[in-house]
Amino acid sequence: MSDGRHLILDLYDCEPASLDDYDKLEEWLEAALLMANATILRIIGEKFQPQGVTLLALLAESHASIHTWPEIGYAAIDLYTCGDTTNTQKAADFLIYKLKAGKVEQKDLQRLTSLPPDES
Amino acid sequence: MSDGRHLILDLYDCEPASLDDYDKLEEWLEAALLMANATILRIIGEKFQPQGVTLLALLAESHASIHTWPEIGYAAIDLYTCGDTTNTQKAADFLIYKLKAGKVEQKDLQRLTSLPPDES
Repeated sequence: MSDGRHLILDLYDCEPASLDDYDKLEEWLEAALLMANATILRIIGEKFQPQGVTLLALLAESHASIHTWPEIGYAAIDLYTCGDTTNTQKAADFLIYKLKAGKVEQKDLQRLTSLPPDES
Repeated sequence: MSDGRHLILDLYDCEPASLDDYDKLEEWLEAALLMANATILRIIGEKFQPQGVTLLALLAESHASIHTWPEIGYAAIDLYTCGDTTNTQKAADFLIYKLKAGKVEQKDLQRLTSLPPDES
């Protein structure tokens, strides 16, 4: 069986300047996903006013997202990958490191994505 | 305080034909989000071969996603909205209804998105 893994990260006490830097966040998200061996099909995003960034990555293995609130040093990150070929935790660790998160809350959800054994 | 609400839906025993119909899924996602009073900035997606669809909606209030596996009648849906103006459950209920899900597992996560009271 090959299940989906969905990491839900709430990062607190991050560096505010980084959380408002669209280009840097996109570069880090891309690097994190490549490190995790994910296949990026497209990344889109939005820089909000007066602050905050959203990035969404469409992956062959599902998706990843980052939403930031620089004013409170907070980032909400989702890393959802399916299959046996990705190492989602690697992407999480890289983003936690880059954002210099002071406090991390991580949930790790298993989501069904498998064919039943007799159909695979 | 205005928190983020993240609904995580695993839908089983859905109608397989709908799960592989990109245009229909996009239409339903858009309708669901408008019903929920969300502000859609962009929707992107991918039709996979031999089957399966991914849709990602970039919202002013965060994001929504649908991933489908028609071959097992399964859809993984995320509806993540911030602020007090959206009714995320409405979007969930509409998609469950449209996909004719036979079994629904829903998780309801609260995620911090608020300014601390003394800064708001």
